[in-house]
Amino acid sequence: MASERSSEKVSEWDAHTAIDEIGDGLFGAELDPGWVVGGGVNGGYVLGVAGRAIAAAVPTKPHPLAVSAHYLSASRPGPARVATRVLREGGTVATVAADVSQEGTTRISVLATYGDLAAMPSDVETTAVEPTLPPLSECVAGSLAPEDFRRIAPVMERFDMRFDPACIGWATGEPSGNGHIQAWMRMADGHELDPVGLLMACDALPPVTFDLGRPGWAPTLELTVHVRAVPAPGWLRLSHRTRNVAGGMFEEDCEVWDSAGRLVAQSRQLAMQPRA
Amino acid sequence: MASERSSEKVSEWDAHTAIDEIGDGLFGAELDPGWVVGGGVNGGYVLGVAGRAIAAAVPTKPHPLAVSAHYLSASRPGPARVATRVLREGGTVATVAADVSQEGTTRISVLATYGDLAAMPSDVETTAVEPTLPPLSECVAGSLAPEDFRRIAPVMERFDMRFDPACIGWATGEPSGNGHIQAWMRMADGHELDPVGLLMACDALPPVTFDLGRPGWAPTLELTVHVRAVPAPGWLRLSHRTRNVAGGMFEEDCEVWDSAGRLVAQSRQLAMQPRA
Repeated sequence: MASERSSEKVSEWDAHTAIDEIGDGLFGAELDPGWVVGGGVNGGYVLGVAGRAIAAAVPTKPHPLAVSAHYLSASRPGPARVATRVLREGGTVATVAADVSQEGTTRISVLATYGDLAAMPSDVETTAVEPTLPPLSECVAGSLAPEDFRRIAPVMERFDMRFDPACIGWATGEPSGNGHIQAWMRMADGHELDPVGLLMACDALPPVTFDLGRPGWAPTLELTVHVRAVPAPGWLRLSHRTRNVAGGMFEEDCEVWDSAGRLVAQSRQLAMQPRA
Repeated sequence: MASERSSEKVSEWDAHTAIDEIGDGLFGAELDPGWVVGGGVNGGYVLGVAGRAIAAAVPTKPHPLAVSAHYLSASRPGPARVATRVLREGGTVATVAADVSQEGTTRISVLATYGDLAAMPSDVETTAVEPTLPPLSECVAGSLAPEDFRRIAPVMERFDMRFDPACIGWATGEPSGNGHIQAWMRMADGHELDPVGLLMACDALPPVTFDLGRPGWAPTLELTVHVRAVPAPGWLRLSHRTRNVAGGMFEEDCEVWDSAGRLVAQSRQLAMQPRA
């Protein structure tokens, strides 16, 4: 029986992405209802569950470097299976395919290149500019969201999110129109995210289309994440931008910066525009 | 026997990406030596061959929307097989997995979401800014590259490429250091590229690391392309940028703009830095 103290040692993220190997490269998981948003389960969370199974499939390559997910159907809370297949394992990187399914229906199909970020060179010549955010105390906590918003997005309870006031006009009916949302973020239970957790962080902010005055659900077709470093402990800064809203679709670029000022993850997704 | 005139009707691109269905979802192809660069075959070309096979596997969804490729081993000129597997086909989009192999070794593994760009909405609210390039006559033709460069990169013969002089300093030992290369581009035979051809266009420019003074080969780990519209006829403008050279890797973002000023494709790849 776990004592209160030992249960504190397991982060909510680790508990919600726990997997059991039930066959050769086949893992069982339980998608937690705490990640529901709208009619499904947050896509970044489902990718994180897949990411954990992939890490288990190639133990000497614990970290995602590049992970591409194509979304086939909406995930639901409840049991899920992750079938992994190692396509190639070399000295530095491994390539793994993974499918997350529920009751025989594929939810997401994933191709991943994994490695060991701790063994990579330490050079940093990043020219991308860190997001400028007001101090935490001047940002808007996600917990201040209206009750009806939080009811359809329990996923918001997983994070301590502090939005840049300049990008939060959509919450009060005054979207900036810039296609930009940024926030401080850490997990609600105070635990740090590991590199697999960054797969989820890249899909944690609301869709950038909120800032364009389109508050509906934006179904992801594809999401690719590059994880570039193990994040330093502390608050992360997340930024979502779009520059090509066209043809019924839009791209959403996410950057994740850590407390040490390193660009630790970059992602891009292609999503369908919300219906007007 | 083909007359000279009818042979002109088939573009080099179509000829080099021709596929034969040799089994259920299994296609034979011949990787043309004209696409060699350094020790292998251009990765965008191999992705184009895969893209053609995927289009054949889902005939009512002829166009790539989002295509993710993970590169497992270097392709060589000669016979190749593309094994496709339709994961889901709905009313609007289909998701297909494809593996390109040679002599039993997987070269690239692909996940693709295909649809019909002609059936998508016509809205364009792009805020990304078109690349500014000098007129063709003031740009530097790829055909002016030194003989020894062209010998290791026959792929350059496939294109009529006109580089922005501001981004071509690397060719004379004076890289700008900005991590930016841009050029006008069309196929050498004057034929237009279709949406599948844009998969290749996103990997047609030299690696952006040339502009950082690192002229070596940069092995791609992963390349994802979003194709957003059928390109208008005429010259394309290609732009490569990097903003996160770190940890032994770098990301390379490509934009493809058509002659009508539309951002028709966006891609990002993760590659290993060239050795110093």
